[in-house]
Amino acid sequence: MPDDQSPTGRHTQKGVVSPGSLNPNLRRIRKKPWRLEDYTSGIQRGDRVTLAKAITLIESTRREHQALAQQIIEACLPMSGQSVRIGITGTPGVGKSTFIEAFGLHVLKEGRKLAVLAVDPTSQVTQGSILGDKTRMEQLAHQENAFIRPSPAGESLGGVARKTREAIILCEAAGYDTILIETVGVGQSETAVHSMTDFFLLLLLPGAGDELQGIKRGIVEMADLAVVNKADGERLPLAKQAKQEYRNAMHLFPPKESEWVARVEICSATTGMGIPEVWKDIQAYQEQTRANGYFEHNRRAQARYWLHETINRELRQLFFNHETVRSQLEEVERQVMNGQQSSFHAAEALLQAFREQK
Amino acid sequence: MPDDQSPTGRHTQKGVVSPGSLNPNLRRIRKKPWRLEDYTSGIQRGDRVTLAKAITLIESTRREHQALAQQIIEACLPMSGQSVRIGITGTPGVGKSTFIEAFGLHVLKEGRKLAVLAVDPTSQVTQGSILGDKTRMEQLAHQENAFIRPSPAGESLGGVARKTREAIILCEAAGYDTILIETVGVGQSETAVHSMTDFFLLLLLPGAGDELQGIKRGIVEMADLAVVNKADGERLPLAKQAKQEYRNAMHLFPPKESEWVARVEICSATTGMGIPEVWKDIQAYQEQTRANGYFEHNRRAQARYWLHETINRELRQLFFNHETVRSQLEEVERQVMNGQQSSFHAAEALLQAFREQK
Repeated sequence: MPDDQSPTGRHTQKGVVSPGSLNPNLRRIRKKPWRLEDYTSGIQRGDRVTLAKAITLIESTRREHQALAQQIIEACLPMSGQSVRIGITGTPGVGKSTFIEAFGLHVLKEGRKLAVLAVDPTSQVTQGSILGDKTRMEQLAHQENAFIRPSPAGESLGGVARKTREAIILCEAAGYDTILIETVGVGQSETAVHSMTDFFLLLLLPGAGDELQGIKRGIVEMADLAVVNKADGERLPLAKQAKQEYRNAMHLFPPKESEWVARVEICSATTGMGIPEVWKDIQAYQEQTRANGYFEHNRRAQARYWLHETINRELRQLFFNHETVRSQLEEVERQVMNGQQSSFHAAEALLQAFREQK
Repeated sequence: MPDDQSPTGRHTQKGVVSPGSLNPNLRRIRKKPWRLEDYTSGIQRGDRVTLAKAITLIESTRREHQALAQQIIEACLPMSGQSVRIGITGTPGVGKSTFIEAFGLHVLKEGRKLAVLAVDPTSQVTQGSILGDKTRMEQLAHQENAFIRPSPAGESLGGVARKTREAIILCEAAGYDTILIETVGVGQSETAVHSMTDFFLLLLLPGAGDELQGIKRGIVEMADLAVVNKADGERLPLAKQAKQEYRNAMHLFPPKESEWVARVEICSATTGMGIPEVWKDIQAYQEQTRANGYFEHNRRAQARYWLHETINRELRQLFFNHETVRSQLEEVERQVMNGQQSSFHAAEALLQAFREQK
């Protein structure tokens, strides 16, 4: 039994806001189950406990939780959207959590409210590596205007991405105007994060000029800003050199639809050097893309993308969970692979069975 | 009305085998429509006119043609598979048709039977540019053991790819042991061709060391062999230099699942220099991958891939042609893009309508 079956089945983690239902005070006050208005009014007030509890509903696989979660999302939708959504990626060891802590504390000082979410489809296997480490971001987690939430458990990237995207809506409705979405620097989760954020930040290490080749080219192309972290002490000259190399490499990419020219910065998350520049770049990006219309255009295109992405995913689910399809698929695949049936003929037959009894 | 509505509605082209139904001799002999056995026995005999006529059935959109085409394919399936399937791509101007002519005449001399097919989803727009030029491959087209077929008309890459993959089965059943699938060096058609061939050949021009950047990196990575064409006269030193540069670049790619190390050759399709080496490389590839099991493994994986690809495509067709979905989609998209409905909620509603009346 996966531990996301129930909103009360989660582990609590120090420095990470717990789901409301685990809060003993709430238990004492309320006996009856929360209704839609309890959630929406709490979220509107910016209550972090209610927000956490609502996100837990989103992450639940129980049907009645899902139904209520969808109502909450629809109710929050008109209050959402007023934020900048920032995607952050980088290979393990690049110092992502230290960076997020330093960056987060900076934007709080600038008067922003910050929510940190994550998309990590592997977190179920690795027991929630992203944002799951108790010692991570401890300072940030204790700030009143910060909300940190680990990656939802989920078997598929599609499922995890969906839950994160829904959580963004609730965070925005709760007044968070700066949303960070973290992901690991491997695989397809970057594409998912890129398609739900306004700005994409790639964290890099100093040295290793050929490191750019280690990261998938597609991911580097997505970046609006590359930040060379750990630019301190002996590594500072190396970081400066890396900045120049990355800048040269990134100028070879075709221009972006946003007309934004990707920038490269150096920073040290431990000394704080370069952190204000990162925030300035994000503000410059917003200014430019809001002026030329790309910011809004991109948000609309993303909404449409997720509509079609969801249709694709659920349509496939519907098909492959169909009784006849389930019972025949393995044998049909075997026949197709052995050349006993053509791929197209076999597909037609399965689709016919699916059509006949939906 | 598109001209692929009927097998008799095609243009004839000099040097390209015409569909049988346009052959006056056949018209005179047979009054009644061809039955399954007429097709299969003709194909088994290696009769090019029957083969062309059967492929025209595959390309027809008429329901009764499709039904008969599927029967022919199923009947041919046990006789298919005994060939090497070679994908060829390269940007316009690289001399693809001249190369195919030179290469084709060489393999015929080696005692092979050659079929040349094409995947070009843009051919409908450009009036069939690939293999459609009357003056192309004239020598090859007149050889008894060669069969040349232009890219089928089709609105989607999926449709075109499917038709080409079905044509491969018929060509193999007709005794063609060397199948060339040509495509243009742009867009996604390379991926489709790669997923239906055993060996992928990339044609390149001499000079332009940075040309590799013009071709999508993913396409270069697919290549089992890169051939620098036009290595003649003044361009020979340039071609030799390009060969070295491409070799260096390609060695940076991760090793292939086939364990084959991609090669680079130079050739001149006009003088014939280097053409035998290309064929030797393809034979070496076959020898190695048949010995290590990859050849067969890849064919099976491709069959499974096309099963799922077809399911995906037709499932989406089923959904988006659904009456309620069709009537609501535009409005739903508008609402989602304006933030009046969440992507997920909207997708659920459309899927619900689809489920209720299939």
